[in-house]
Amino acid sequence: MSLPLRVVLVAPRNPLNIGAAARAMSNFGFFDLRLVNPYHVAFQEAKSAVKAQGVLRAAREFRTLAEAVADCELVVGTTSRGPRALEHPLVRLETGGKRMVKKLASGPAALLFGSEKFGLSNEDLSHCHWLIRIPTREEHGSMNLGQAVAVCLYEIIRNPAARPQKRTQPAAQAGDLERMTQLLEELLARSGYVHAGTGASTRMKLRRLIRRMDLTAHDAGVWLGMLRQIRWRLVSYQEKE
Amino acid sequence: MSLPLRVVLVAPRNPLNIGAAARAMSNFGFFDLRLVNPYHVAFQEAKSAVKAQGVLRAAREFRTLAEAVADCELVVGTTSRGPRALEHPLVRLETGGKRMVKKLASGPAALLFGSEKFGLSNEDLSHCHWLIRIPTREEHGSMNLGQAVAVCLYEIIRNPAARPQKRTQPAAQAGDLERMTQLLEELLARSGYVHAGTGASTRMKLRRLIRRMDLTAHDAGVWLGMLRQIRWRLVSYQEKE
Repeated sequence: MSLPLRVVLVAPRNPLNIGAAARAMSNFGFFDLRLVNPYHVAFQEAKSAVKAQGVLRAAREFRTLAEAVADCELVVGTTSRGPRALEHPLVRLETGGKRMVKKLASGPAALLFGSEKFGLSNEDLSHCHWLIRIPTREEHGSMNLGQAVAVCLYEIIRNPAARPQKRTQPAAQAGDLERMTQLLEELLARSGYVHAGTGASTRMKLRRLIRRMDLTAHDAGVWLGMLRQIRWRLVSYQEKE
Repeated sequence: MSLPLRVVLVAPRNPLNIGAAARAMSNFGFFDLRLVNPYHVAFQEAKSAVKAQGVLRAAREFRTLAEAVADCELVVGTTSRGPRALEHPLVRLETGGKRMVKKLASGPAALLFGSEKFGLSNEDLSHCHWLIRIPTREEHGSMNLGQAVAVCLYEIIRNPAARPQKRTQPAAQAGDLERMTQLLEELLARSGYVHAGTGASTRMKLRRLIRRMDLTAHDAGVWLGMLRQIRWRLVSYQEKE
């Protein structure tokens, strides 16, 4: 049985790295590769390579990270940065791998890798529940993308596969959490809580806030209903002005 | 403190893979890279790459595997083949990584990777004490060389570094074991135990036999002295004929 893990490459530039990521996935038994806004030529070149794996041929392209992880109950980012630079919980790969396996027993999860040059942006990170750091040397922390994917997937399959666990409530999917974020942001703007022009940083703060809530799917639905109702009311007032 | 691990690439062909192996070594804090009979152009190209790491610039080239591992007390090969095809003890990477860390606390060890196309040959494997298998899928076992190096080194640093252990006796170095093998082979040929023409397979059997003995450096020295003496005696008789 294959674990429902989505490997998400954000803005990859190098076709060899895309191919290497796909190969490592196939080696370790993962088949759902997603690319967010890849450098188009690179993706086409990787796909058309003679040795392209089935994983690569089946890879899907998304315009935004939010769309790429919409069906995931857990979104985990990878970084070579130290904890001081980050506003997210950061765990070493050994710990993070175990946690992911546990989660994967009950629902889909995404593991995110940033572009070769810049890694994941703060905007990307705001979609994550928590972050993984591969324990590289401080003096040379940044790994090659294909190798980073291989090491992370190895750590995940290294764990004796967690048995499917009973859970009383399935967790909320990232798509619902993102809809909540957008609704809440709109409400705050409409209500004058935030000023115009602070959009990006506000949205990231809201994303983190909402992901920290660790909502069940049911509760996310309730929240969405409440927020929509509030927006409807606000809009109806503001249209009268 | 850096562990005394030598990463040995046997007959690598692709400069990108050589570079990737060096990068992973630097990421995980290993600095002793050795290449056996590399494709010359590839090695030069890798070394002259703009992003070449210090590890790569300091890499050393050897004509034979025996020379490359001569100063090692433990020689471990990597393979994607199943246990049935092999005459060596084979352990999964998780187990093998722990064992290597233990050994590295008391003396140098080598980890061998074969060429991209063929892996390690039977001749190469005969230099190994035991083998490691990365737990890839049966249907797609063969990993990219740079990724295989990254995964193995990650597993090694993943283990809480074993404290240096007291040992009453240092282990024999591979150079001495190889000299024993050659002496014994010569003796068997001179004594008519083996027929001419069976050289390669005999040598491999002897290598495995001798490595299974797990000799201390002292005992290897004693053995070498005994074998040399026997040879001297045999030669002196045979020259009289």
